[in-house]
Amino acid sequence: MPSYVAPVKDAQYILHDVLKVSESKTPGYDELDADFTNAILEEAGKLTSEVLAPLNVVGDKEGCRLENGVVYTPKGFKDAFEMVKEGGWTGLDMPEEFGGQNMPAVIGSAVGEFFSGANQAFTMYQGLTHGAASAILAHGTEEQKATYLPNMVSCEWTGTMNLTEPHCGTDLGLMRTKAEPQDDGSYKVSGQKIFISAGEHDMADNIIHLVLAKIPGGPEGIKGVSLFIVPKFMVNEDGSLGARNGVSVGNIEEKMGIHGNSTCVMNYDEATGYLLGDMHKGMRAMFTMMNEARLGVAMQGLAQSEVAYQNALIYAKDRLQGRDVTGVKNPDGPADPLIVHPDIRRSLMDQKSFNEGARAFTLWGATLLDDAHRNGDKDADGLISLLTPVLKGFLTDEGYDMTVLAQQVYGGHGYIEEWGMSQFTRDARIAMIYEGANGVQALDLVGRKLATDGGKHVMAFFELVKSFCKEQGADEAMADFIEPLKTASKHLQSAGMFFMQNGMKNPNAALSGSYDFMHLFGHVCLGLMWGKMARASLDALANGTSDTAFHETKLATARYYMARRLPATAMHLARIESGADPVMALDAEAF
Amino acid sequence: MPSYVAPVKDAQYILHDVLKVSESKTPGYDELDADFTNAILEEAGKLTSEVLAPLNVVGDKEGCRLENGVVYTPKGFKDAFEMVKEGGWTGLDMPEEFGGQNMPAVIGSAVGEFFSGANQAFTMYQGLTHGAASAILAHGTEEQKATYLPNMVSCEWTGTMNLTEPHCGTDLGLMRTKAEPQDDGSYKVSGQKIFISAGEHDMADNIIHLVLAKIPGGPEGIKGVSLFIVPKFMVNEDGSLGARNGVSVGNIEEKMGIHGNSTCVMNYDEATGYLLGDMHKGMRAMFTMMNEARLGVAMQGLAQSEVAYQNALIYAKDRLQGRDVTGVKNPDGPADPLIVHPDIRRSLMDQKSFNEGARAFTLWGATLLDDAHRNGDKDADGLISLLTPVLKGFLTDEGYDMTVLAQQVYGGHGYIEEWGMSQFTRDARIAMIYEGANGVQALDLVGRKLATDGGKHVMAFFELVKSFCKEQGADEAMADFIEPLKTASKHLQSAGMFFMQNGMKNPNAALSGSYDFMHLFGHVCLGLMWGKMARASLDALANGTSDTAFHETKLATARYYMARRLPATAMHLARIESGADPVMALDAEAF
Repeated sequence: MPSYVAPVKDAQYILHDVLKVSESKTPGYDELDADFTNAILEEAGKLTSEVLAPLNVVGDKEGCRLENGVVYTPKGFKDAFEMVKEGGWTGLDMPEEFGGQNMPAVIGSAVGEFFSGANQAFTMYQGLTHGAASAILAHGTEEQKATYLPNMVSCEWTGTMNLTEPHCGTDLGLMRTKAEPQDDGSYKVSGQKIFISAGEHDMADNIIHLVLAKIPGGPEGIKGVSLFIVPKFMVNEDGSLGARNGVSVGNIEEKMGIHGNSTCVMNYDEATGYLLGDMHKGMRAMFTMMNEARLGVAMQGLAQSEVAYQNALIYAKDRLQGRDVTGVKNPDGPADPLIVHPDIRRSLMDQKSFNEGARAFTLWGATLLDDAHRNGDKDADGLISLLTPVLKGFLTDEGYDMTVLAQQVYGGHGYIEEWGMSQFTRDARIAMIYEGANGVQALDLVGRKLATDGGKHVMAFFELVKSFCKEQGADEAMADFIEPLKTASKHLQSAGMFFMQNGMKNPNAALSGSYDFMHLFGHVCLGLMWGKMARASLDALANGTSDTAFHETKLATARYYMARRLPATAMHLARIESGADPVMALDAEAF
Repeated sequence: MPSYVAPVKDAQYILHDVLKVSESKTPGYDELDADFTNAILEEAGKLTSEVLAPLNVVGDKEGCRLENGVVYTPKGFKDAFEMVKEGGWTGLDMPEEFGGQNMPAVIGSAVGEFFSGANQAFTMYQGLTHGAASAILAHGTEEQKATYLPNMVSCEWTGTMNLTEPHCGTDLGLMRTKAEPQDDGSYKVSGQKIFISAGEHDMADNIIHLVLAKIPGGPEGIKGVSLFIVPKFMVNEDGSLGARNGVSVGNIEEKMGIHGNSTCVMNYDEATGYLLGDMHKGMRAMFTMMNEARLGVAMQGLAQSEVAYQNALIYAKDRLQGRDVTGVKNPDGPADPLIVHPDIRRSLMDQKSFNEGARAFTLWGATLLDDAHRNGDKDADGLISLLTPVLKGFLTDEGYDMTVLAQQVYGGHGYIEEWGMSQFTRDARIAMIYEGANGVQALDLVGRKLATDGGKHVMAFFELVKSFCKEQGADEAMADFIEPLKTASKHLQSAGMFFMQNGMKNPNAALSGSYDFMHLFGHVCLGLMWGKMARASLDALANGTSDTAFHETKLATARYYMARRLPATAMHLARIESGADPVMALDAEAF
């Protein structure tokens, strides 16, 4: 059975050596000293490694079961959920007034990776609750907050988000679910929603569904969509639970992975719902959840890659097969361990350099979120908004690819379910799809985010890379990192330029390159992260750190990313600059 | 449920317009006129689409079942197998004296793609039999051939190949299975083999296992390995079946995919075996199977990609979601079909250009095999030997990636088993692993095949590309294709040069780039194929073909491959030229 060890040390390195969180002026960051964050991360590491990770295979094998309208989660999930709740992990970054601990998002993200790495299907129950609670926090009335948040922050009640219908996923304007206004100010919600993660299960007393629906007579399409709170059980004025509402699970889906999470068809039959936020402004309210969810999904890409890598590494060190061509390394054994072979190294280094770069990227993203929310910094808000599709699309695509590489290290055993490597790829696969398929992320990036505020945020990103390169360029020790980063960044700017010059005339010239642009952007971000990590480790070594091996490993891994991964940017640029013609040449009938 | 339509027209195009098989001097090719091959392909298309494809999902859902030592295949498999046998499909390219039809490998390959595309797990039963029969044909005594081949060619008896043991896969020198010589010239084989595809099942009267084992006292390691024929039931002199041999199935594996094929743990307990080929030369005999099997696996990569693409295309044309940014295409509907969106096009064109290029590559490879076997052409033999790891490694990696792209077109539905797209990726995944994991293919290519016969075959390949470019370079209509191909080919040559200059000093400098080299080589091969297809279609148009749309589509697809896929070669070269240092910098303990 595969194992999981939370990468506490690496998270600490990013928080303190690279991001230097406790030096930040952002409210709450002053508390994040190394001892404090270490205590939290160690505790989270223990829970995730010892309790959640062993349930990962159980969840995959057993899956969820629907019987007479009740969904049963896999054996052990319920007890583990109690432990998670008791530990206060569900409200880490939620306001104290609703029972949370009001910690910054950056610490929530660091902990969140561990949870997802240990057991993605399990962690989704609390992840979706967190998203739904955030939407209520941002858009709810005082009464709604008081009614739902305390129990959602503690995960006594869980939450869901209901967008997709059988005939519409990305294009929510086609939605058919209706919400009829009632005299008492509530609505009767009717329709069918599909792919509702954690839509029904046996781990919470109540489930608070956030449901997109149309109020009859409203504007056509996406502009007539509103968001509703639809509890599974009605909540009485004293907070106790009342009658069952008109919402039920129609079916649970058989999926490629995340079997431990119940993916439900939800039927709404004149269910009582309460408008959340403004009428017809449901998409805006839903995007509070979606943006947070996208960052969470980005982290899932990293998390599955990390756990798959950990197990590939164990196997590569244990499994004896063949001999080192440059000389026997294990003369007393019948063969050398796999890790002596260059092609196994290539695979492991691809994984390692991705994981550590992605961890820095997600935690940097979380500091931008904190800066936006806690400092009201509009630039930080604009930047994280620009980076969200990159984080989601690039990290989940790459994260999936890394799980495939990790599985490959196992040879035939990687294909056998008993060894657990298949589950990592099957679970990781969903992250490329949900919360906006990655093609939609690329569209959001190129079709919307690039031009936001007159292109101000993408220019700020370029400036950020440029000033880092300028600042560091004088240091010869940084040359291995700065030169490749400069080149990659130029490719990104050229791609942006190509879109500007050609996209106005023909939007397809930009959209044909959107996916490549997302990946090109992602590589530049990881290149920047590795540049920053190289700087941090050079400083640590110069300052006489006792942990030289750790920092020298960082520098070697940074060099690997620059030498072996960043060359992808030229390819993406070439594809982008080939424009719309190759992509759009054929009539649909010619396919 | 997904569907499958055998790509008869495209196979015909490659056979006749591109490869011009009936003009070849290779014995048997004169019979391959367009009408004849069309009749065969149409018939194979009917059987595979109507009988095998509907059983694909059944096989996945039901899997194989082991009960009291008997393996039961999924419902419907047995009847379908009877139909395949009755149609004479199992001996298409086998000698007439053993009941085959003695057709060239090129037609066997064209048909083989259809079988694998319709149902890979099912087709493996006959595929492994074919491989085992080929080994007996090449290395068996006259008596062995007479005893086993007629029933194996007809698939009354099926075959297996037994290499892997729990502690050794790639490194077969570590093998523990023993074969003790007996007074009557037979051997007693004892040991355990794992991952034995079709090792036990209920569709054949007998199963002929080819088993690698060591004769005690022989040379150490891989040089002491011999190959044995171990029948499930002993064969009496009159050809009737005798006693059960000492071989039994210990377990069947639960796998990520190809559930319809039984992957067995096989226990040999003093089973009677007969030496096949020379003592201690088992690897050579096994490689007769392996090389054939590797080409078959390459084709599986293409086949799964093709069927996944077909279904992605249907969905992209049917599913209404969003609007074409350049203007509404389906004004009467609530939205436009997915296929209007550039990023969906990118995905479909990636798939289409891969499939058609890969089909040309595999069929070209099959003509080289025919040339080697039927004409005794040593150059053709050397070239296909060089290309085998490229075919296997590149086409299965890319084929898998394409199934992932196809699945992505379905959005959330791609993740739900009901829609069948997940199965294509899960089934395709094994092809990157079995018959030598793709990292081992890359090692074989760079560590062995490049230098074979003093590098003669790789030089011949370069010459072949060069002369094609020279010959076609004068034609302006070919410029779109020849220029990118020239560039890609130069990258391949530079990579080869880098290995020569650095690999002698440090083998790791070559092996660190082996995987990239395999992919770089694959792109050049597909570039060459697209160049040849462009030539064929330009000729067809110039000659006044009535099917202008077909050929213009070929030209557009060729342009796509050149513009959007070939730029990968520069990236692979850059990675290769970064050498061993980034890959090998870390000590194993530093990971």
